[in-house]
Amino acid sequence: MKPDGGSLIGFGSSGLGGGSFKAYDPAKNVALEPSFTSATAEDVDRAAQLAAAAAPALARLSGATRGKFLRAIAANLEAKVDDLVARAMQETALPEARLKGEVGRTDGQLRLYAESAERGDWVDARIETANPDRKPLPKPDHRSMLRPLGPVVVFGSSNFPFAYSVAGGDTASALAVGCPVIVKAHPAHPGTSELVGRLILHAVRDCGLPEGTFSLLFDAGFEVGQALVKHPVIKAAGFTGSVKAGRALTDLGAARPEPIPVYAEMGSVNPVFILPGAIAERAAALVDGLHASSTLGVGQFCTNPGLIVLQRSSAAEEFIKALAAKLSATPESVMLTPGIAKTYAANTAIRGKQAGVKVIAQGQTAGMCGATPVWFETSALTFAGNHALSEEIFGPSSLVVWCKDRAEMLQVAGVVEGSLTATLQTGATEAKEQADLIEVLATKAGRLVLNGYPTGVEVSHAIVHGGPYPATSDGGRTTSVGTRALGRWARPVCYQSFSDELLPAELQNANPLKVHRLVNGELTKALVA
Amino acid sequence: MKPDGGSLIGFGSSGLGGGSFKAYDPAKNVALEPSFTSATAEDVDRAAQLAAAAAPALARLSGATRGKFLRAIAANLEAKVDDLVARAMQETALPEARLKGEVGRTDGQLRLYAESAERGDWVDARIETANPDRKPLPKPDHRSMLRPLGPVVVFGSSNFPFAYSVAGGDTASALAVGCPVIVKAHPAHPGTSELVGRLILHAVRDCGLPEGTFSLLFDAGFEVGQALVKHPVIKAAGFTGSVKAGRALTDLGAARPEPIPVYAEMGSVNPVFILPGAIAERAAALVDGLHASSTLGVGQFCTNPGLIVLQRSSAAEEFIKALAAKLSATPESVMLTPGIAKTYAANTAIRGKQAGVKVIAQGQTAGMCGATPVWFETSALTFAGNHALSEEIFGPSSLVVWCKDRAEMLQVAGVVEGSLTATLQTGATEAKEQADLIEVLATKAGRLVLNGYPTGVEVSHAIVHGGPYPATSDGGRTTSVGTRALGRWARPVCYQSFSDELLPAELQNANPLKVHRLVNGELTKALVA
Repeated sequence: MKPDGGSLIGFGSSGLGGGSFKAYDPAKNVALEPSFTSATAEDVDRAAQLAAAAAPALARLSGATRGKFLRAIAANLEAKVDDLVARAMQETALPEARLKGEVGRTDGQLRLYAESAERGDWVDARIETANPDRKPLPKPDHRSMLRPLGPVVVFGSSNFPFAYSVAGGDTASALAVGCPVIVKAHPAHPGTSELVGRLILHAVRDCGLPEGTFSLLFDAGFEVGQALVKHPVIKAAGFTGSVKAGRALTDLGAARPEPIPVYAEMGSVNPVFILPGAIAERAAALVDGLHASSTLGVGQFCTNPGLIVLQRSSAAEEFIKALAAKLSATPESVMLTPGIAKTYAANTAIRGKQAGVKVIAQGQTAGMCGATPVWFETSALTFAGNHALSEEIFGPSSLVVWCKDRAEMLQVAGVVEGSLTATLQTGATEAKEQADLIEVLATKAGRLVLNGYPTGVEVSHAIVHGGPYPATSDGGRTTSVGTRALGRWARPVCYQSFSDELLPAELQNANPLKVHRLVNGELTKALVA
Repeated sequence: MKPDGGSLIGFGSSGLGGGSFKAYDPAKNVALEPSFTSATAEDVDRAAQLAAAAAPALARLSGATRGKFLRAIAANLEAKVDDLVARAMQETALPEARLKGEVGRTDGQLRLYAESAERGDWVDARIETANPDRKPLPKPDHRSMLRPLGPVVVFGSSNFPFAYSVAGGDTASALAVGCPVIVKAHPAHPGTSELVGRLILHAVRDCGLPEGTFSLLFDAGFEVGQALVKHPVIKAAGFTGSVKAGRALTDLGAARPEPIPVYAEMGSVNPVFILPGAIAERAAALVDGLHASSTLGVGQFCTNPGLIVLQRSSAAEEFIKALAAKLSATPESVMLTPGIAKTYAANTAIRGKQAGVKVIAQGQTAGMCGATPVWFETSALTFAGNHALSEEIFGPSSLVVWCKDRAEMLQVAGVVEGSLTATLQTGATEAKEQADLIEVLATKAGRLVLNGYPTGVEVSHAIVHGGPYPATSDGGRTTSVGTRALGRWARPVCYQSFSDELLPAELQNANPLKVHRLVNGELTKALVA
């Protein structure tokens, strides 16, 4: 399997018009063949119209068929994992084991959403039966469930070429709900994107789904993505990336004649609050754990721990000294793109010049795409007074914030911005004294981690990968990982006084799909008499 | 109980500064005492800061306490129903029976949300237990549930002085979740608003809840509402009213440094599709039913049937002729405000001058606030080609759209804008042939009504009172009525590797609140071992 460089539009391919660009091998500093052709305005419209035409048929599919489709995509990825990983290694410089693991995670996501589609409980079916004798007015029979929103646009992310890209969580969850998907490929890994896109299209054909169920568009710039978000038939979008790009797309979605939600997962500093007991009990383990979490994938994770908050003491100073020594000795690693490496170098240089901020660890880099950890320290007062210190630096950089006492740690918790995660490291007996800190952090993050590390996101029913702004565009009301993500692509529809045969199966009296339903306020799988 | 005209801010009252205005009796054309003082910028900030200060305590309340609080509000309204209705009759010209019924509905809403808060299932608790043996990585324990967003602003609506105003559905659902609420009173019924606000504050005190749990601000204009939506501590807003005002507030919420959702329920034409069988089988009943539905409350319902779509035939022409005769003979009624009556007169005059549009029913009005039904007819082609004909006229006015055949009815369904409801009237045997029409209408409305009328909204677990834009600002992803509305004011929070005593009760192993939980993918009330 080799990419050929054209956008995949419905069952066709477009390589005409638009500018062209190439992928880039950041480890070898060379461009990769072939050339990819940016989609044209006509390509965008054609993909959108095909998606709109496919939407009614997709909305009518059974959950079983949607599940089969997602499982077919997973099987196709699995069968071609070597081809996919070989291309992705060139385009991202990420190691083979990580990329193979990421394909496995992507397959796991697809299968978890398949299971949800098959089981059907996610539609949140609710039934109120008629009561003709109710006073002052009879009660009509009415029943509601979640239905698909319609065509969805997904933006591939730079840092997860599989799990948050073409067949990633946004695509999988939208397809599971029954929404057609148009992916705007990330230009950092177009070849990987095309290969994955073709495997999705094989599954579309094999499952007999309509043309327009899936399309994949290339663009080196922003025009195609913006045109997709603005297209009248598009009903929602999913994005993972920077605050700047995510906010621009969210604003575009909100400003449309008919506004649409853009679920953007953006910047997150993932604060880690380290209490004295944690240092007293396991300083060495914390040094190793924090070093590993912050350098994992060259710090290119949205859950990278970017802020370390702790109380000054000689033990804490020793701890940070040991951590800084380990960070400074970390060898150079290659980042995803020259642009990301350049931005990392620029942002760490700017932070180093902020008043009251001191560099505590900095390695040396030689390669064009190379990076080493750069860590800083400052006081709680300086942190609270300089908003620039709250911003995420994408890469293996963190800011240590020194507090006088626990009260100051609580104050810092009160001023940190929204994050995907917030972590608390405590000693064995002091954990239960942190209720106030936990309550504050619960208003700041989508996931609270106790005595662990923020990196590593479970894919499950209970996970929340979202958080207050700027972690996400929607104030953390949703997640982009796990089955809670399904609801993003759906809206409730109520059927009043409908006869059984006109209702969706999930709402029929006999409950043929055996879904959980709230019947007159009681949760049950029983049939309605 | 008599209003005194000051905003209720926390446990205090503010009547200083700002301009002043009076309520107006539209039936008698006289201003009503007392004067109400518009809130100042300082009032707004004080109400917001009090709400922010109260938020953590409210978030920690048990569902049982929140339920008790809502029931106390309902009991207070019930005890003072005569005072409330007396003032509301003056301010709205709505009849006593309707207003008494509306207080009853408001109490019913409060008690339904109380029941949800007490039962606790709405938090959608999910638990994934640890698996230390999982390969390649151990699975951490993680558990999630919905938590309150924080301070919420609610805008009172003009047409429901109780059910969609100070203690209405938005307020009740936000309080049930544990969010402090600041209401911006509708200036058309400030006295009713103040009386209800005081009854809520009695309940706040009686239940020992913190100051800032509830505030009520007056303003004759837009400044106070805009300042509330822009205030940094506010996390969401609920609105019911016009597209123009709702969209302006939604845009304001989206443009904030930290965007917030403004759940606006706005314009809805509520199309009614009448198939030939319905006319053949029950023309006389349809005349009565449509007349009643469209003139109910002088057409001042968000679910008023504003668009009637049917196929031309001599039976259909007879039917419309009989309906038009009944409409023309309808006596004048008083609208809610002189402004609404004036806008109704202006909008019906404009519609009457549109090319291809003909007036088919028009009564005579004499009073300053009077209105009678004004109905129009046009062709499917004219309707599809003139967007102005898709817009709601607030009041007892509807547009009849004549189609050549069923195919043209389907086309009209495809071009109608988003609505709260869409209704299908069919004959006994033709209902089951409408699957395609039902599928199209399901993408256009939040509630589909078969052989009924759109007015009359159940308050229940299954109801959906929302719909695609412009019916709501959020594309119909939520509802403003019923228990599905609770999720608007909440976000999921995940707790990873937390010990039992640090978890919210809903997520503790023993399940002390006996809520339904998704434990490792299985829905159960059982404890976690």
